[in-house]
Amino acid sequence: MKSFKRLDGQDIAYFESLMPARVFHGQAISEDYDHDEMTEYGRYLPEAVLQALSAQEVSDVLSYCNRHHIAVTPRGAGTGLCGGCVALYGGIVLSTEKMNRVLEVDTNNMTATVQPGVLLMEFPKALEGTGLFYPPDPGEKTATMGGNAMTNAGGMRAVRYGVTRDYVLGMEVVLPSGEILRLGGKNVKNSSGYSLLDLMVGSEGTLGFLTELTVKLVPEPRVNLSLLMPFDDLDRCISAVPRVLACGCEPTAVEFMEREVIACAESYLGKSFPDTSADAYLLIRLDGASADALAPSVEALTDLAGEIGALDVLLADTDERKESLWNPRGAFLEAIKGSTPSMDECDVVVPRDRIAQFVRQSIVIGREEGVRIPSFGHAGDGNLHLYVCQDRLSEAQWKKTVARVMERLYDAARALGGEVSGEHGIGHAKRGFLRQSLGQTQWRLMQGIKQTFDPNGILNPGKVV
Amino acid sequence: MKSFKRLDGQDIAYFESLMPARVFHGQAISEDYDHDEMTEYGRYLPEAVLQALSAQEVSDVLSYCNRHHIAVTPRGAGTGLCGGCVALYGGIVLSTEKMNRVLEVDTNNMTATVQPGVLLMEFPKALEGTGLFYPPDPGEKTATMGGNAMTNAGGMRAVRYGVTRDYVLGMEVVLPSGEILRLGGKNVKNSSGYSLLDLMVGSEGTLGFLTELTVKLVPEPRVNLSLLMPFDDLDRCISAVPRVLACGCEPTAVEFMEREVIACAESYLGKSFPDTSADAYLLIRLDGASADALAPSVEALTDLAGEIGALDVLLADTDERKESLWNPRGAFLEAIKGSTPSMDECDVVVPRDRIAQFVRQSIVIGREEGVRIPSFGHAGDGNLHLYVCQDRLSEAQWKKTVARVMERLYDAARALGGEVSGEHGIGHAKRGFLRQSLGQTQWRLMQGIKQTFDPNGILNPGKVV
Repeated sequence: MKSFKRLDGQDIAYFESLMPARVFHGQAISEDYDHDEMTEYGRYLPEAVLQALSAQEVSDVLSYCNRHHIAVTPRGAGTGLCGGCVALYGGIVLSTEKMNRVLEVDTNNMTATVQPGVLLMEFPKALEGTGLFYPPDPGEKTATMGGNAMTNAGGMRAVRYGVTRDYVLGMEVVLPSGEILRLGGKNVKNSSGYSLLDLMVGSEGTLGFLTELTVKLVPEPRVNLSLLMPFDDLDRCISAVPRVLACGCEPTAVEFMEREVIACAESYLGKSFPDTSADAYLLIRLDGASADALAPSVEALTDLAGEIGALDVLLADTDERKESLWNPRGAFLEAIKGSTPSMDECDVVVPRDRIAQFVRQSIVIGREEGVRIPSFGHAGDGNLHLYVCQDRLSEAQWKKTVARVMERLYDAARALGGEVSGEHGIGHAKRGFLRQSLGQTQWRLMQGIKQTFDPNGILNPGKVV
Repeated sequence: MKSFKRLDGQDIAYFESLMPARVFHGQAISEDYDHDEMTEYGRYLPEAVLQALSAQEVSDVLSYCNRHHIAVTPRGAGTGLCGGCVALYGGIVLSTEKMNRVLEVDTNNMTATVQPGVLLMEFPKALEGTGLFYPPDPGEKTATMGGNAMTNAGGMRAVRYGVTRDYVLGMEVVLPSGEILRLGGKNVKNSSGYSLLDLMVGSEGTLGFLTELTVKLVPEPRVNLSLLMPFDDLDRCISAVPRVLACGCEPTAVEFMEREVIACAESYLGKSFPDTSADAYLLIRLDGASADALAPSVEALTDLAGEIGALDVLLADTDERKESLWNPRGAFLEAIKGSTPSMDECDVVVPRDRIAQFVRQSIVIGREEGVRIPSFGHAGDGNLHLYVCQDRLSEAQWKKTVARVMERLYDAARALGGEVSGEHGIGHAKRGFLRQSLGQTQWRLMQGIKQTFDPNGILNPGKVV
């Protein structure tokens, strides 16, 4: 469909002159660069990998590639789940892995400015002692903050704190032309023209290359505790979610989990879950200024438990007990992956009161199609992760089945007012589903936007639109 | 610059066939439609005013105007401050004033869906008894919710709750082509392509015509109280803001006010402010689940008061006392307006720790240029409202002076990392300043976006870009 210039010796020589010892080509390219976390979506080796250090280098590389029509695939830690950072059309992978410095923590304005390659797991170290924290909390802690911004990552704490978009105040981005832009800044309000900043968030590197990110920080809650509510069955469990949200307890996270998925994680971690009595669980986290301040919320939830059919309420207020609940939750994806030769993922979001209905439909679809579809997710914000598992299906059967099952799942979500992706993005794997879901007009508008930012289409080609 | 078709009898007849008794032209157009709240920016009478009732009507009108190249100016309650809803190029004003129904309050998903013409002051009635509320709280309560979404209005409570953008979950918008789009919905997370929804928010009716709005609601805090801190001088007062924000009290609002502006409001309202001892004041509002839950915040602020040089801490926990503080605050704009034959407004936002510096600079500019520049505003989020007053200057002197003063104020804000508008938008009055502030590249990108949505440029021409 698209045709890009293949790299030649002159191109490589130019890149090497720009960034000596940070250009890899041919045999020197690690296989890590040919996929993200979902090898299921194919492997694509780029012709060269470049590790940028500065906006100026990115600018030089992009304007060169723009002039010579070379495809550029931006890449952070490669932890995505939709093939967003793989070089579908060859060309170069431009990596942010060496742009990993926290540039400033501004306690007065409660902001931090970081390079895009800072890992989510590293960032809290820079905030130690400030009393501030960065709420977005995707499960994958080895992801980069830049990658999180470019996919509008969500995570567990979104129920209370919102998603990455809500924390992005400013960006430095480089356009394919090589122009370096500053969008937003440290201001917390803005009504100054179209929000190019919000357009960049979630654009998966198709509109510009992120070289600096300013995020909002908030005062760190001093204490947190978790409650586990076991239920007889999944339906009753998920149906309880709107009541939990409405009871005034202001939860930070509300996750649902099934016995089957927990068992998977138990065997993956070699540790057992604190409760094995029930088929389904709600795991609720509360944050607050003090144990006293949380007491009314705990009381409200305990009172509610009987009404919504919870079998019990288990309180976890020590680190050890909290870990015994949250560690299995953190291992779900890897555990499911390990339980099947291949799988495909569906990251839909539906209105919160439709989750139960959607999960019921997914169970029916799984039964009818003869596949296992374990699911878990962020019940508190309607964002579900479903995994269609190959298990013992042959390659040929699997290919046919998974295509049909995915289509049925997305159709069901759409019929309930849902969207294709809650937090993982589109990449190339979900592009067809996005197109179907958006309809012609929105698709055309998105293509017009792409054309405005990247008229030659060199930035992350084949992704999103 | 632009040329649009003038309306003729055939056009009027077509509109009348679409919406009988809701088309006004010639003498029948009320003068109210030739301006917003700032007549200073000129009066422009449209050739016709159409009051729409439905998305279908809007679609029919827009596609007709698009084919015939007739300018369309969307308008809500006309309470803007930048001339965003005036018909600069004639043509029609398409008003949402009759689209004023609350369509749904969904307590399960904690959302409400409204027509764009619902007034901010009317909306809370629809939420009575649900325990939910809509946090955005701009001073102007007769504004429409649609207008608020299209300017990304902010308001007092943004310190804690964020701005209108943070509450817009979904929209129905009509493109100039007549196509009716649904953006977003009731989902609280979304990573499905470019955020057209966020692009619409704050676009001031230049990209599409809003016909339905779905907003997020949150549990209503059961109690609130306010604290007033008097200070010897304005500088000390504003310099204290970062400390207030950092003390862990999680304020809903942090406003600053000067003696001079308060005096203006006192004489406007004919009521006196509870404290007259000081030159400057911080007014802080706290929201919470109970008086007990707020106690630690009150204590933290009381402890802090001495350290930051506050002369006193006055607590307002009865409705009467709260009103005695907040009513004057609500009357500032009208009071300043009433004190001068003409004025111009500057709605800049700067990083929170630069407010004191910016206000100092505005005082110097006022002194050097020989004009009064009273200011007040949302100290907690760096958003200031400054009013350059004509007072006794002659028309000729005033014109020259105000142009120079506004330019100096925007320059000063830009130098501190600020933006042209925190919450009022751009309209036509601030367009030149926006262009200067954005620079060529961002201006070009915004024009490309405009071109994608509105290729014939019929929607709100002359505004924003």
